[in-house]
Amino acid sequence: MPRRLESTPQSDGFRMPAEWERHAGCWMLWPQRRDTWRNGGKPAQRAFVEVASQIARFERVSMGVNRDQYENARAMLPPQVRVVELSNNDAWMRDCGATFVVNKRGDVRGVDWRFNAWGGLDKLMYFPWDQDQLVATKMLEIEGIDRYAAPFVLEGGSIHVDGEGTVITTEQCLLHPNRNPQLSRAQIEQLLADYLGIRHIIWLPRGVYEDETDGHVDNLCCYARAGVVAMTWTDDRSDPQYERSAAAYEALMSARDAQGRGLEIHKIHQPAPMTMTTDEAAGLDVVDSAFRRPVGERLAGSYINFYIANGAIIMPIFGDRHDAAAAQKLAALFPQREIVRIQAREILLGGGNIHCITQQQPAGS
Amino acid sequence: MPRRLESTPQSDGFRMPAEWERHAGCWMLWPQRRDTWRNGGKPAQRAFVEVASQIARFERVSMGVNRDQYENARAMLPPQVRVVELSNNDAWMRDCGATFVVNKRGDVRGVDWRFNAWGGLDKLMYFPWDQDQLVATKMLEIEGIDRYAAPFVLEGGSIHVDGEGTVITTEQCLLHPNRNPQLSRAQIEQLLADYLGIRHIIWLPRGVYEDETDGHVDNLCCYARAGVVAMTWTDDRSDPQYERSAAAYEALMSARDAQGRGLEIHKIHQPAPMTMTTDEAAGLDVVDSAFRRPVGERLAGSYINFYIANGAIIMPIFGDRHDAAAAQKLAALFPQREIVRIQAREILLGGGNIHCITQQQPAGS
Repeated sequence: MPRRLESTPQSDGFRMPAEWERHAGCWMLWPQRRDTWRNGGKPAQRAFVEVASQIARFERVSMGVNRDQYENARAMLPPQVRVVELSNNDAWMRDCGATFVVNKRGDVRGVDWRFNAWGGLDKLMYFPWDQDQLVATKMLEIEGIDRYAAPFVLEGGSIHVDGEGTVITTEQCLLHPNRNPQLSRAQIEQLLADYLGIRHIIWLPRGVYEDETDGHVDNLCCYARAGVVAMTWTDDRSDPQYERSAAAYEALMSARDAQGRGLEIHKIHQPAPMTMTTDEAAGLDVVDSAFRRPVGERLAGSYINFYIANGAIIMPIFGDRHDAAAAQKLAALFPQREIVRIQAREILLGGGNIHCITQQQPAGS
Repeated sequence: MPRRLESTPQSDGFRMPAEWERHAGCWMLWPQRRDTWRNGGKPAQRAFVEVASQIARFERVSMGVNRDQYENARAMLPPQVRVVELSNNDAWMRDCGATFVVNKRGDVRGVDWRFNAWGGLDKLMYFPWDQDQLVATKMLEIEGIDRYAAPFVLEGGSIHVDGEGTVITTEQCLLHPNRNPQLSRAQIEQLLADYLGIRHIIWLPRGVYEDETDGHVDNLCCYARAGVVAMTWTDDRSDPQYERSAAAYEALMSARDAQGRGLEIHKIHQPAPMTMTTDEAAGLDVVDSAFRRPVGERLAGSYINFYIANGAIIMPIFGDRHDAAAAQKLAALFPQREIVRIQAREILLGGGNIHCITQQQPAGS
């Protein structure tokens, strides 16, 4: 059933659909590594259970789990979540999983990017990432979906598309020498076109301050619908995030999309700066071969890191005074969808948020 | 999606269909343990690839694989075989996997038997069997199929049904004290009725000589269609198999099925006695916590251990002078099906054969 294709999505008439297009379901991975998730992963697991349970109200959820956590995950998750064995090194399905593409007939295929754990041995988020690298293949095998093996490093969190020919990404991430140093900007642009089925790239300069991913766009800015974007913002000019958001805003203001449209831009004020507490840090294993998040270092909190489910927005909140305003903005941007708020500090402590731990599978036909 | 049900198939109107009823597909597990499969599993893997490839000509095949063999299995198997991660201790899908049941509406559910590796610590085929025990749950989760957790030990290889209310099994296995010592014969009969949706049991005394499973019926005797059985036979009265086959024949001759019919019995002459060679034994790891197959010990070879696929019979052959006659008998018994012969000595060396390493999933509707 599943074939490895030597052609490209673009040449076969496939494109990555926008996240708001109808899903068959959502894929996630179960958190467990003790150097990423404090207290043996238990608080994060409860947060992931909440995310999965809420998404499962709207679409099928498949949770991929290492074998040593299979029984625990099955017991903690509600029965409507499908639990499948799927070995992984950490829980960032958006980044190590497949990106799905569709054609006009409603066929669905998967793109299997190269994965180097956000920068390989230079960055050393953790080592090894051998199981993460197989996640895309395995999820496509389970579904019986054909696979394009893309010949370059990319994480799903570094791209957002409008489904009509445009991708938004950041120079900080896609042009970083720890990803594809052998490729020129022009070559990367060509590969994005080939593998996402897009015609136009909107480059933003940098991502969110202290974001460990080298500036993934999915924490900074996303499409709400074609021609309309939302981005994280701060009114505090002394905050290091200010100049980053301002630069992104400027780039978005002057951008045109693949259809030649200018963009409508919605600012969503970020949560107040957060840092990891001493108590939280004490819950983490210290491991030489992994990135260490020091006490007091800024966490890259952003409301933009939400997931669009069929009929709902699954958004992170932090017990912050900006939570309500962010939810209101999303409600206005997505009037047809229920806004589901999830206390997401435990996910943020691991280095990402709800969008980073999910991956939509389009419905096809 | 998949629920754990507290009722029984019988009470819910479900029954185990006969193997010749239409399949959605076939499940297998990938062989790798070095104390079961010689030379690091490579010869057995090639045999399993052949079995999977042949079945895949007729129905979907899903191969469950441990993570450390995933890439190798994916590479060795043809693309039309689906490869899913599914941790296991050994490759006997028939025995550790789910048994499927259906109802009149075409709904499909799974029965998850307790598994103790053919006799638990008394027998010690190998230890541990913790991953085998989870195979049924995991395959049902992948398919989104509801699960009955049966409260007793049973292996799929110890039963054959006609789909019309009858099961054939052996006293040697089902009444063995290493399976369910706390249950009486009457209680076991009740549980078989409850979980297979049958009304009548045909008890045969013993299975095949030197069969390590304590006499699984699937190496001795099987249904070819309702009212018609095939069994392994020898004309050599000095062979220890003779009295076993003769006793089974006698029991079958006097049996009535659930519909009150007598049985038409077809004898298929066994292959000439085979033993493991010194060279073959030298390819096995010696492990204290696992059963050892000594050089010169009889292998439980039988042509009955075949798989009924949609439109085909996948049968073992051994390069034996009885191969052709066995194939002719099966061709006569299954006139609508292609008879596919597979050189199966490597599977037999591991302790079973083609029926033991497969499990059909009925089509439902």
